[in-house]
Amino acid sequence: MSNDLLRIGGKELENRLIIGTGKFPSKSIIPKVIEKSNTQAVTIALRRIDLHSEQENILEYVPNNCLLMPNTSGARTAEEAVKIAEIARAADCGDWVKIEVIRDSKYLLPDNHETLKASKVLVEKGFKVFPYVSPELSVAKALESFGVEAVMPLGAPIGTNKGIETRELVKILISEINLPIIVDAGIGKPSHAAEAMEMGCEAVLVNTAIATADNPPLMGEAFNQAVQAGRKAFLAKTAPVKDLADASSPLTGFLQN
Amino acid sequence: MSNDLLRIGGKELENRLIIGTGKFPSKSIIPKVIEKSNTQAVTIALRRIDLHSEQENILEYVPNNCLLMPNTSGARTAEEAVKIAEIARAADCGDWVKIEVIRDSKYLLPDNHETLKASKVLVEKGFKVFPYVSPELSVAKALESFGVEAVMPLGAPIGTNKGIETRELVKILISEINLPIIVDAGIGKPSHAAEAMEMGCEAVLVNTAIATADNPPLMGEAFNQAVQAGRKAFLAKTAPVKDLADASSPLTGFLQN
Amino acid sequence: MSNDLLRIGGKELENRLIIGTGKFPSKSIIPKVIEKSNTQAVTIALRRIDLHSEQENILEYVPNNCLLMPNTSGARTAEEAVKIAEIARAADCGDWVKIEVIRDSKYLLPDNHETLKASKVLVEKGFKVFPYVSPELSVAKALESFGVEAVMPLGAPIGTNKGIETRELVKILISEINLPIIVDAGIGKPSHAAEAMEMGCEAVLVNTAIATADNPPLMGEAFNQAVQAGRKAFLAKTAPVKDLADASSPLTGFLQN
Amino acid sequence: MSNDLLRIGGKELENRLIIGTGKFPSKSIIPKVIEKSNTQAVTIALRRIDLHSEQENILEYVPNNCLLMPNTSGARTAEEAVKIAEIARAADCGDWVKIEVIRDSKYLLPDNHETLKASKVLVEKGFKVFPYVSPELSVAKALESFGVEAVMPLGAPIGTNKGIETRELVKILISEINLPIIVDAGIGKPSHAAEAMEMGCEAVLVNTAIATADNPPLMGEAFNQAVQAGRKAFLAKTAPVKDLADASSPLTGFLQN
Repeated sequence: MSNDLLRIGGKELENRLIIGTGKFPSKSIIPKVIEKSNTQAVTIALRRIDLHSEQENILEYVPNNCLLMPNTSGARTAEEAVKIAEIARAADCGDWVKIEVIRDSKYLLPDNHETLKASKVLVEKGFKVFPYVSPELSVAKALESFGVEAVMPLGAPIGTNKGIETRELVKILISEINLPIIVDAGIGKPSHAAEAMEMGCEAVLVNTAIATADNPPLMGEAFNQAVQAGRKAFLAKTAPVKDLADASSPLTGFLQN
Repeated sequence: MSNDLLRIGGKELENRLIIGTGKFPSKSIIPKVIEKSNTQAVTIALRRIDLHSEQENILEYVPNNCLLMPNTSGARTAEEAVKIAEIARAADCGDWVKIEVIRDSKYLLPDNHETLKASKVLVEKGFKVFPYVSPELSVAKALESFGVEAVMPLGAPIGTNKGIETRELVKILISEINLPIIVDAGIGKPSHAAEAMEMGCEAVLVNTAIATADNPPLMGEAFNQAVQAGRKAFLAKTAPVKDLADASSPLTGFLQN
Repeated sequence: MSNDLLRIGGKELENRLIIGTGKFPSKSIIPKVIEKSNTQAVTIALRRIDLHSEQENILEYVPNNCLLMPNTSGARTAEEAVKIAEIARAADCGDWVKIEVIRDSKYLLPDNHETLKASKVLVEKGFKVFPYVSPELSVAKALESFGVEAVMPLGAPIGTNKGIETRELVKILISEINLPIIVDAGIGKPSHAAEAMEMGCEAVLVNTAIATADNPPLMGEAFNQAVQAGRKAFLAKTAPVKDLADASSPLTGFLQN
Repeated sequence: MSNDLLRIGGKELENRLIIGTGKFPSKSIIPKVIEKSNTQAVTIALRRIDLHSEQENILEYVPNNCLLMPNTSGARTAEEAVKIAEIARAADCGDWVKIEVIRDSKYLLPDNHETLKASKVLVEKGFKVFPYVSPELSVAKALESFGVEAVMPLGAPIGTNKGIETRELVKILISEINLPIIVDAGIGKPSHAAEAMEMGCEAVLVNTAIATADNPPLMGEAFNQAVQAGRKAFLAKTAPVKDLADASSPLTGFLQN
């Protein structure tokens, strides 16, 4: 297992749980969550990075050894997403960018077409691009051809905690796309994260479920273990589902012997 | 978490994954699985304990610090289950007993009524009784009144790996029975085990899914982490499921500022 | 299809939807529901049958050609269920009886053991017995040996509308018991009723979902059609589930020709 | 109910089950299936319409009063889809067209982007356009703005019979798009069709599940009833799902009175 590394964006990570930094009851709890969950990469909305003022800045709460994945939250078009990505890079947030282009304020579903356009431009500008998409094979194939780092399909709308409701479509992406598939959005419990990993996802991104738990650091620890559990099960190969029972113990004739 | 102990059968255990010892490709792999999964209790079919001969005995493969939970596999009536339990105790396997009374050889479903009878007798004889049952509230209440240590409902038939197909009934046992509920049978993946723990089960018993994986020690490790993940999520309280999205990141007006 | 009859309790019915008569906004809507749903059998709680007074009696609202299946609702023991059945027969409600023995007032789950006892006595007394049970194979086999008319497992607790949450257990009853299996309780939508019939149930019993719909007669019509749809699909044999797509239309080379 | 009509493509239909004509064991069974299922609209792959030769032509098997919805199966680009649509119209198949643009031969998933392009062109050319898409809100909104007649999201890949695996995404289309939503692909059983209608779909399209049943006319009849059942349940408003039981019958004190 020691060499089972997640290779994305030019990096090698031991940990496969990426955490979002929104919605926490206070920023000051974030370092504890990162520590307990062992996460090595976090997403950050640029707006939470206070580039100018004296106010507290979320970056102060992220340890130096943790990778930043700025997201383009707030962008409604490809053009806006590109601008936000460039501002983030200029602000020393690195060259990773999670693309979110959202026009729908009720379900926060990504606009796949604008996301495609932004991804193409940003890959050409040298970014390491992580697009958040609705799980659609033709879009994922186009993204793969552009040279993105991973494809990040939603499991369910952001913040709903419904789990991987799109599992049939996500399984197809895992089967057909030669890039890491990272489920982002909808994961509400550790069992959901484990399921994603058992299916063959390379990582998961979790925010709401950790940030809004009663005890976020403990929930971060739970998700970390679930992701590891799911990954190990994938590597150890789960047994097939059967319709008839299959005895674990010898069944008959005990007392006749 | 250090004081979050599983208290059953007069013992306090840190680990909540109980493992069955059937179906492994060879007995010699069992110590490695126990080590990797950190399990502190294993079920054993008495028939696998060779009481008389020179042949290899499964007990040689179970570390001394691991609790034994002999099961009455092979019993078709309460009377047979009682006899098997007494033989196990006489053979120095301790006073724990997992009651299995099964008359159905196709799905291996427990006979709740015979299980009830055996449980009553064995509690009176001073055993620590762990009955394997079909999830039925009235039976669980009777078992509780007899003084058993836990109630062990099936998630799905033994060896099918289908997961917790009885979840609505298991949730009711968790809500109504003032004893540990331990899902036994049907758990096929770590995500299933995590789900059981998130629901409020106190432990799970897994056999087929570990024993028949390509890599049983790694799968044991996976299940151990999943059980811990589910337990921590239960303690940290999972967030509610919602129908509409709930933004993790600030959504609008980024570029207007 | 004209000879696809439901044979239960010494009768032959064309319709496979049994309706419960509780919870309707008014008794006067019941005849319309029965007409629209084409149902030929209804369950009635004896208490709703006013044996003595001048008050309106639910029996006045049931057409003469509709079979009565009095239930023993209110019984907490086998003995009470037997008494209620005998009162119903004495009151000219016929010899059919649906046995409900319920001690749990929160989930209204049947007590299988008391139900077994009542069933045995009532079959011996010449009743046509329809026991409502938690889906447990050993109990269903015992009921079959006593000579009941059908086994009626719950899909989910009464009134929850959750659907057939016990499907794995119900499928086993269908496979192993040589009697009609009739899902009773939990069916909340026509699609649930269709699913039960597709699985091989011989009939379904629905009450809450019809009685508490905005438009009960229309919902009764919907359930009738769903039950017929599911039955026909069972007879016409549904196609297997596949993992890969299978083209309905010729796929390639259209324009090359 | 007599005025509950499906209004699409400039027509008013009483029946909400559209049938595909591929995969039947023989063309000669199709009229019987259409009769039994009461369908008023069928999809036809243009290639099955033999425009030139003396060979039997599928159009001979479709009654005159049945609407034709030629599909563009075989198209791999928007341009090809447009050409096929024009050929169909020139061959007197009318101005309805179901757009299928598929580049993926393993799962037969639609290419949403090419489908969008073809839809725009064909609406401008005066066609009544029915696009088959992966359920994605931004694409559905674009289609709505172009003036298509309906949006046809897949429930699961064509021919898999898995049911509405995309239900969370389909529900969002129903909520947000002011056009009929018609689930197309994946529906394997009448219960799936009923579920789609209960959710608020205006119609369903079924092919494989009927064509490959042992008895296609009986299965067509089953689907017709299931679609009607689901529609009526939608209109009659299904009751809410509850966690606790809710008694249909009076529960206590029967024998005390």
